[in-house]
Amino acid sequence: MERTLIQDLGARTGESVLIKGWVSVRRDQGKMVFFDFRDRSGTVQGVVLPNSAAIEIAKTIRVEYVVAVEGIVHQRPEKNRNPKVMNGDIELEVTAITVLAEAEPLPFDMSETGYNVDLTTELDHRALTMRHPKLQAIFKVQAVIIDSFREYMKSQEFFEFQAPAITPATAEGGAEVFEVQYFDKKAYLTQSPQLYKQIVMTAFERVFSVNKVFRAEPSSTTRHITEIVSLDAEMAFIDSWKDVRDMSEATVRYILNEVSTRCAKELEFLGATIPAMIDYTPTLSLTEAQEKIHSKTGRDVRGEKDLNPEDERQLCEIIKEETGSDFVYVYGYPTRQKPFYVYPNPENPEFNEGMDLLCRGVEWLSGGRRINDYKQLLEHVAVWGMDEKKVAMFLEAFKYGVPPEGGFAFGAERMTMQILGLKNIREATMFPRDMNRIDMRLSEEDQTDA
Amino acid sequence: MERTLIQDLGARTGESVLIKGWVSVRRDQGKMVFFDFRDRSGTVQGVVLPNSAAIEIAKTIRVEYVVAVEGIVHQRPEKNRNPKVMNGDIELEVTAITVLAEAEPLPFDMSETGYNVDLTTELDHRALTMRHPKLQAIFKVQAVIIDSFREYMKSQEFFEFQAPAITPATAEGGAEVFEVQYFDKKAYLTQSPQLYKQIVMTAFERVFSVNKVFRAEPSSTTRHITEIVSLDAEMAFIDSWKDVRDMSEATVRYILNEVSTRCAKELEFLGATIPAMIDYTPTLSLTEAQEKIHSKTGRDVRGEKDLNPEDERQLCEIIKEETGSDFVYVYGYPTRQKPFYVYPNPENPEFNEGMDLLCRGVEWLSGGRRINDYKQLLEHVAVWGMDEKKVAMFLEAFKYGVPPEGGFAFGAERMTMQILGLKNIREATMFPRDMNRIDMRLSEEDQTDA
Repeated sequence: MERTLIQDLGARTGESVLIKGWVSVRRDQGKMVFFDFRDRSGTVQGVVLPNSAAIEIAKTIRVEYVVAVEGIVHQRPEKNRNPKVMNGDIELEVTAITVLAEAEPLPFDMSETGYNVDLTTELDHRALTMRHPKLQAIFKVQAVIIDSFREYMKSQEFFEFQAPAITPATAEGGAEVFEVQYFDKKAYLTQSPQLYKQIVMTAFERVFSVNKVFRAEPSSTTRHITEIVSLDAEMAFIDSWKDVRDMSEATVRYILNEVSTRCAKELEFLGATIPAMIDYTPTLSLTEAQEKIHSKTGRDVRGEKDLNPEDERQLCEIIKEETGSDFVYVYGYPTRQKPFYVYPNPENPEFNEGMDLLCRGVEWLSGGRRINDYKQLLEHVAVWGMDEKKVAMFLEAFKYGVPPEGGFAFGAERMTMQILGLKNIREATMFPRDMNRIDMRLSEEDQTDA
Repeated sequence: MERTLIQDLGARTGESVLIKGWVSVRRDQGKMVFFDFRDRSGTVQGVVLPNSAAIEIAKTIRVEYVVAVEGIVHQRPEKNRNPKVMNGDIELEVTAITVLAEAEPLPFDMSETGYNVDLTTELDHRALTMRHPKLQAIFKVQAVIIDSFREYMKSQEFFEFQAPAITPATAEGGAEVFEVQYFDKKAYLTQSPQLYKQIVMTAFERVFSVNKVFRAEPSSTTRHITEIVSLDAEMAFIDSWKDVRDMSEATVRYILNEVSTRCAKELEFLGATIPAMIDYTPTLSLTEAQEKIHSKTGRDVRGEKDLNPEDERQLCEIIKEETGSDFVYVYGYPTRQKPFYVYPNPENPEFNEGMDLLCRGVEWLSGGRRINDYKQLLEHVAVWGMDEKKVAMFLEAFKYGVPPEGGFAFGAERMTMQILGLKNIREATMFPRDMNRIDMRLSEEDQTDA
């Protein structure tokens, strides 16, 4: 018999079917055995009646066994129907079970409602815990974020490129960069595809990439991991930084729409609400944002060089109250506080045309206009005290004619975390790397014979 | 005036338009100046007549200048039309030019036909050379290969996940692994997402990833780079390795179809022919392949543990002649020659159910069935002399019930190279890393103050 996916059982009532999947739950009730079976498409309840040929084998089967199950699909009696779950109106009367793989007893309860482990345990057993519906839902949302980013970029004629992970000594790198032993030389793991995406933009006009970036931040907070999926875009022929702002807003809007339609079930399961994006997201200069915080809260942060976490929180609250928007753009930071390539406002060069998108108190996305003029770039390289040789390839791209341009970037894990209201970025990272863990806890790792 | 993309000019004859782009060619002809302009969508010829207001500025403009050009779209006279190129039937009569960015004189001829630099020079100037139509075509094909891989996987209900780049000391790693200074510990760059994709498969049933892998191969051949884009798939509930074979064949078929339709122009420009895939790709065991080589060429390679490059070439030639297929599958390698997770043929455990897809004399893709039984995996770990602790997470996934499964993988750069008949994999890699180069040549790099 051909395998039927569990999601398709509803259309097969009265028929004999074969399903294949895992046992999520087994419940013995009198002489009957009930199962919840699951496959990649969903779950269904099965019942083995006392006179079934499968009753003996049913009693030997434990949670997470992999089984091929033959049975007959029945409508449930009215009173037993549950319209809230997939296949809540049907039940599979099991006629035969073949065990495809056995499972050892679980180290903790993995049932949908009984699952209750702390994050450390969850990560210690990632290979098992990712079978739980909560984790499945989180990573489904993340896959949709990444997929819909690419989808929107392609619809806007952005070209996809692969940014490199290994980089030479770069001018950008600070202390927080990982060193790689590269044959008999040193190399580094990229902290950002920034310079590469600008280079590729000079040839392809509009480009995007989904690539890993690495941050050797020696801090173990709820927001820091060392390996991040960065979603990057860069576009030429802009009229001003506002074109970048608009493109980034449209991108986030598209992603949120896709997540809310393609992941409705997952959002409900996780109790998450998509943040509200109004028609035109409020957009303030840093100075205006500081004025607003001062006038609304009395706290005077005017003249500070950046927003601190408390500023970000308060600004988001104020904007939410005033406009209903969960999002707010802040632009125009002190030029010397930011990287050399950020475009200074020609009318007030002390401030630049960089921008951040904040939501619910934290930064979601950064970007802005970049310097496209070769001579101006050379000046900035000098003023920032950088070594020209280390940005030689980048500078060459701008030597030969580059239009006004800008771009933006955001991290997939942080957006997943923020959309879902998770407390720790490790929950939104399938295999999180940090100071203390690479799969295993590093304190326990045997490093002697690597 | 709103910008018109160059590809849309054909529909605007008789109208005034504004285009923005780069100058690819400038030709002075008597008192007139001719230009080829390009943007991300294509190219068009422009002419500045002697009485045009733009004639003076036109004479100052060099190749790779970025310009905003106003003009009137004219049909060309019949005799001047060129149906083979975009906009070959129209010409833009230039009325005004604004220079958006100047360009320094080029280090070599970058025109479509005049471009003639060796690969080293091409790589030394990657930031410039990727503007050339040849390179644009190559990376367009690569983007379509990657995109259509994802498209097909999604259509088959594979779940996309992000495989990690940084790994702990693993049992798989050999000498050819890059070491990372990870805070006060050692870590490594992944050589393959193999074990991770198997883990994620145990939770999501069908999974794929597009991720970087790293090989510290100390050899500088035309086929070796150190950083590779790996396209990976893994699927559960297979009946045999043939299900994996079939899925990989369907995937490659889909990619080839997409490349031939979406990149028809690029393939023609590069003079490339898509390899022929017949209805069912010939599929031979290693032993059968060796027999065939022996009987057709007289060269006796029977009993060898693998195919060598000459075997692969001859086998592909024989199959092409016999069947018309450019592709051939070879399966069933000596079990102990391959990694511990490859499934041994139950009827003849000396040989496994691993497979390779060859095309035009080289391997394109590898895969096969994997061991899904926990106890069998433990045995293999022991026989292969591996440290269980170093595959602890992987083993945990298989402890709790895993269906029969398998998967496959291939490199985006190699497939790009092979489809296009390029001689060196560096041509198919935007920022190739090898023993001697990370962007710059390493011999020239100043490593003193990294």
